[in-house]
Amino acid sequence: MQNFKMTIQYDGTNYHGWQVQANGRTVQGELTRVLSMLDHRHVTVYGAGRTDAGVHAEGQVANFFAERSFDACRLRDAINANLDRDIRVLNIQSAPPEFNSRHSARQKTYRYRIWTADVVNPFIYRFVHHFRGELDVSEMVRAGSVLIGTHDFSAFTVANSEAEDHVRTLTRLDISRDTNEISIVVAANGFLRYMVRTIVGTLIEVGRGKRTAASVSEALESCNRSNAGPSAPANGLTLVRVDY
Amino acid sequence: MQNFKMTIQYDGTNYHGWQVQANGRTVQGELTRVLSMLDHRHVTVYGAGRTDAGVHAEGQVANFFAERSFDACRLRDAINANLDRDIRVLNIQSAPPEFNSRHSARQKTYRYRIWTADVVNPFIYRFVHHFRGELDVSEMVRAGSVLIGTHDFSAFTVANSEAEDHVRTLTRLDISRDTNEISIVVAANGFLRYMVRTIVGTLIEVGRGKRTAASVSEALESCNRSNAGPSAPANGLTLVRVDY
Repeated sequence: MQNFKMTIQYDGTNYHGWQVQANGRTVQGELTRVLSMLDHRHVTVYGAGRTDAGVHAEGQVANFFAERSFDACRLRDAINANLDRDIRVLNIQSAPPEFNSRHSARQKTYRYRIWTADVVNPFIYRFVHHFRGELDVSEMVRAGSVLIGTHDFSAFTVANSEAEDHVRTLTRLDISRDTNEISIVVAANGFLRYMVRTIVGTLIEVGRGKRTAASVSEALESCNRSNAGPSAPANGLTLVRVDY
Repeated sequence: MQNFKMTIQYDGTNYHGWQVQANGRTVQGELTRVLSMLDHRHVTVYGAGRTDAGVHAEGQVANFFAERSFDACRLRDAINANLDRDIRVLNIQSAPPEFNSRHSARQKTYRYRIWTADVVNPFIYRFVHHFRGELDVSEMVRAGSVLIGTHDFSAFTVANSEAEDHVRTLTRLDISRDTNEISIVVAANGFLRYMVRTIVGTLIEVGRGKRTAASVSEALESCNRSNAGPSAPANGLTLVRVDY
């Protein structure tokens, strides 16, 4: 059995997220279908992060074990030939048996795009959250800075989170503004469910003047989901990269 | 009656081109439907260029006359609210009665994108033609340069073209290479049917070494469609702008 590591991109618009579901097309489901067909048996695909429905990936990482002997480049082309064009395997390489895309991950980076112009152009609407109105970016930056570091992020995940441990280390939270777009890049050693989207939704409330920067710090300390803002929509979010 | 000029963007993937058809969804058809609904009568929409099925636009221009009195910004929002998100009206402004988006146009600019990496990423596949292989860009530049200027472009349009006059003035033909992409930008006072795609298809043959740069000049002079190369696929083509 050979362990393979692959880097995957997808437009999540038409998928019910990463994880295999009984009903509904998922990215893991599509990859499992194709790899099982190619390896003539059921192949389990391990993903680095379970992106939610509608979330995209520029650099999702997954691994799987194959019984047949494959040339990595040819295998990549064979997989792509059997996938819709909104999922692409960028590259595949052999990995040591102990490599696990999820447990071996050191850091994940996400980007959230907020489009602030009056009209969303048809080439990007799938990938941005449209917020038509003024956002005070410097207040958002100030509010966001308190989240950097090692904290219990219970306030920024679902109330009934299955994760045992809610402590994560946020290593980066960069907010930048282009003419029509605000981009929020966050990196951490791991993310809780809805964590990025809840951080973004809370920061948007700050940007709108609906809450103070100090209230973000208070929400964090409270460890209480009801003190943070709403989750921002899925379609603005992209998993940019996973570092090992 | 007020004449309005509007700038429109669309992802042409899911449309049978610009022009209204008896069967099949078209961009002009969608705009006609929405404007007729808003103006309570049949509205005729005049487009600057009839893009073919699958061709995109970043800056298509159209005009129409409205009987009701509309605020331009509100009208734009009302139109967009009734269109699918793959067509957007970027802006609308009042125009003098004699303005006609097609006849008043001085120059049109198109871009053709050729993607040369092994894998096409899922965020751009709708907008690029995938050509996996080596293309000699400097030969393409040399071959393309002979097309600049005022010529009879009969060899670069459909054999049974309805246009009476096949003489056009090509003011620009720029070929540039990025890491994974070759971009061909052409501008002219007007384009014949399939003209950009036939120019690109012919230049791709030059890039592949299947024809010489000199043969492009010969094809042009022959005024014979059979001497040019095949038309490149529609999805790589975008109408970038129309100048007045």
